[in-house]
Amino acid sequence: MNHKFLPDVATALREAGLADNMTLSFHHHMRNGDYVANMVLEAAAQLGVKGLTIAMSSLFPVHEAMIPHIKSGVIAAIDTDYMSGPLAAAISRGVLEKPVMFRSHGGRPRAIGEGSLKIDIAVVAAPCVDAYGNINGVQGPSACGSLGYILPDVEHAAKVVAVTDFVSDEALRHISIPHNRVDHVVCVDRIGDPTGIVSGSISMTRDPLALAIARNAQAVIRASGLLRDGFNYQTGAGGASLAASTFLRDDMRKLGLKGGFLLGGITKYMVEMIEEGLFESIFDVQCFDLSSVRSIRDNAAHQEISADTYANPKQKSCCVDFLDAVLLGASEVDLEFNVNVLTDSNGVIIGGSGGHNDAAAGADLTIIVAPLVRARLPIVVERCTTITTPGKDVDVLVTEQGIAVNPRRTDLIDRLKAAGLPVCTIEELREKALRITGKPRPMEKGDRVVGLVEYRDGTIVDKVYAV
Amino acid sequence: MNHKFLPDVATALREAGLADNMTLSFHHHMRNGDYVANMVLEAAAQLGVKGLTIAMSSLFPVHEAMIPHIKSGVIAAIDTDYMSGPLAAAISRGVLEKPVMFRSHGGRPRAIGEGSLKIDIAVVAAPCVDAYGNINGVQGPSACGSLGYILPDVEHAAKVVAVTDFVSDEALRHISIPHNRVDHVVCVDRIGDPTGIVSGSISMTRDPLALAIARNAQAVIRASGLLRDGFNYQTGAGGASLAASTFLRDDMRKLGLKGGFLLGGITKYMVEMIEEGLFESIFDVQCFDLSSVRSIRDNAAHQEISADTYANPKQKSCCVDFLDAVLLGASEVDLEFNVNVLTDSNGVIIGGSGGHNDAAAGADLTIIVAPLVRARLPIVVERCTTITTPGKDVDVLVTEQGIAVNPRRTDLIDRLKAAGLPVCTIEELREKALRITGKPRPMEKGDRVVGLVEYRDGTIVDKVYAV
Repeated sequence: MNHKFLPDVATALREAGLADNMTLSFHHHMRNGDYVANMVLEAAAQLGVKGLTIAMSSLFPVHEAMIPHIKSGVIAAIDTDYMSGPLAAAISRGVLEKPVMFRSHGGRPRAIGEGSLKIDIAVVAAPCVDAYGNINGVQGPSACGSLGYILPDVEHAAKVVAVTDFVSDEALRHISIPHNRVDHVVCVDRIGDPTGIVSGSISMTRDPLALAIARNAQAVIRASGLLRDGFNYQTGAGGASLAASTFLRDDMRKLGLKGGFLLGGITKYMVEMIEEGLFESIFDVQCFDLSSVRSIRDNAAHQEISADTYANPKQKSCCVDFLDAVLLGASEVDLEFNVNVLTDSNGVIIGGSGGHNDAAAGADLTIIVAPLVRARLPIVVERCTTITTPGKDVDVLVTEQGIAVNPRRTDLIDRLKAAGLPVCTIEELREKALRITGKPRPMEKGDRVVGLVEYRDGTIVDKVYAV
Repeated sequence: MNHKFLPDVATALREAGLADNMTLSFHHHMRNGDYVANMVLEAAAQLGVKGLTIAMSSLFPVHEAMIPHIKSGVIAAIDTDYMSGPLAAAISRGVLEKPVMFRSHGGRPRAIGEGSLKIDIAVVAAPCVDAYGNINGVQGPSACGSLGYILPDVEHAAKVVAVTDFVSDEALRHISIPHNRVDHVVCVDRIGDPTGIVSGSISMTRDPLALAIARNAQAVIRASGLLRDGFNYQTGAGGASLAASTFLRDDMRKLGLKGGFLLGGITKYMVEMIEEGLFESIFDVQCFDLSSVRSIRDNAAHQEISADTYANPKQKSCCVDFLDAVLLGASEVDLEFNVNVLTDSNGVIIGGSGGHNDAAAGADLTIIVAPLVRARLPIVVERCTTITTPGKDVDVLVTEQGIAVNPRRTDLIDRLKAAGLPVCTIEELREKALRITGKPRPMEKGDRVVGLVEYRDGTIVDKVYAV
């Protein structure tokens, strides 16, 4: 066996030169099934290091295990694009002294490439490794598909450690990370819980509210004039977004169109569209379900891309630049069309930009889909609690009760009105919601800053306060 | 069409910021059919720039067209791994004031990665580009297969310009260079002459001398104890090397072995071996014929690798490190087992290391194959005219008349003798040759240095003098 293979995580960290105050990076393709970040931090704690910065592309409920390491000083800083669950709640309550750096999925590789986020050790949760140290995400019991978010880290980190639970006897034929980028490999029992890594299936909503929003969203796309051969599209895996993609599929069939690429987190609904020939390609930075893992393994039209290729604004181009339309969610939208996907209306951290502001900036048509009212609060607020995507990047807010177009898009207002869509102002949407909810009690912002919100280009656009 | 696409080479160079004293890099997958380097230099000359450094992975007879640009001051320096033809002869005569920097195929990406070879504009001769600017080498009329040698340049250059003669209507399914690495794309009539890019077929020698050498070489491999399942092998496309691979194939069939990977410049003989299942994979940094171009396009067991992955000694690992055996040629071998593949015995430049010293350093068994006498001169000399591969990296010299083993490999001497092979000392080989040729007149070295020879690790191991 080649000298890269080491017996355990602690040995690999020691060999990689782990020391106090280093930055360790991780990726989130294992999502809420990830065992690797917790395992590595446990080993680091036992080695006695302190003051680490954890740069992980997203953090999930399973990463609650990091809270004790924050309290003991092993972790001194967090740099991430998204955070949900008990760790996020603890950060909101102020458990970490240093504010969390919230980036976007394109801003993170930008920071890595320009050197403002300097990684000492990148840790790859590697579903499959061969004897040379080549890595892919498509084989093995913990297959997660694309490894796109860790590729910039691997390119720029001083050291790269792969943690795997499957060593292929044969040289890999699908290589995401070539052996020349990998310092050390450690084999462990399991790198993740498959039920948490990917969903067996993500199922279509039957919620009439989500369907109404989805129908309106697709009507906007249809009326926009962008729906033609070569149409490039991104959507999320939320209820209304997924449902909208089935309405899009129906339209494309009816019109006999062939789209260009599908982008973003990938689900079986996108896979079915390339299989049917409705789109030419999928560019995949992350798989959301088992269908997409199989597809990226078997279908040459379904390609893995790095986070650089996906959304880094400092590259020569990135996929989001080529988007015609994107559907995105929101926890709040304000009267300037600014969007919040980071905190709820109580100011508690529930997410982060992920690719939100990247896709919004890149797409010709950025549609925010949201219900008029959620948890008895209006979606449209006077001023977002936290701004993650500036209103300049947002074109339309689609709700079940009406469609508000950003006033700077007069062209679009004309088109949507001509198509007979229920266009109104965003103020009218707010009024409508307030008639249902009454005026909500204003949130009380704390003084203590627990997070900084970085826009994809590196400017800090907002702060997150303790609750 | 996306804004990257520009109308002509001159516009692309201007947009890329071409200026005096810049370094332009090129690759040699188009070999002697390359039109791109000449085309770009012609455009640069017409733009009036001076003092350029040309960093091209190899230079061929077709690059004779650079001589006038040297004389006019457009080109002030050359950095390459290999050079043959009229340009090489002109360099030997002293046409270029500054010594040429001769590197190895692994040393070049090392220099690029560490920043000692800083590239302002990397020029990709791109057989196929899509509308986003993704590039591959496997489609289009000038398909050359692997683009491995330009990948490190593309990663590190300030600007990347692709010159193509084929724009695919569909998004590429095989992507060697993703669009986010590409600044500008120019479409021209032809990027190369297909008959010069790859050979339609490279045919097996019937020369009895080459066959005798090949038979001895394979006997050495057989006796070495390295021939077992997982055997990793590199060989060149020279007569004896190719012939040896057919003897290797016979042995593997007889012994029922399955090798690991084949490496280096790839020919149909290697392709046939993976198709037959005698080896698992081909790792391909350059295709030598049309069979290998087809294979890298269609066979997942045949993978493109970058020059970093192939041979860069400063990466975390490189493929040559995993070689069991390599067969390499020589123009001279001296009594210390140093090898010259850069100049002939008159000191005229006829080649360069290419991957020679990389593979020699990496392989467990490095075999030099050469006839005892060539052009009425002994192959074994007292001291190489130019050292390109140090004797420490060379294990065996195989000729048709006997086999000399580097004395530090006592283990190997024992094994070969036990197998009944005609082992002798290198001094004995020299004596044998001298009995045929008589003592050659010593070459007269000029004083003027026209080339520096860099070993793969960055140390300068020799100089080349004007003739």
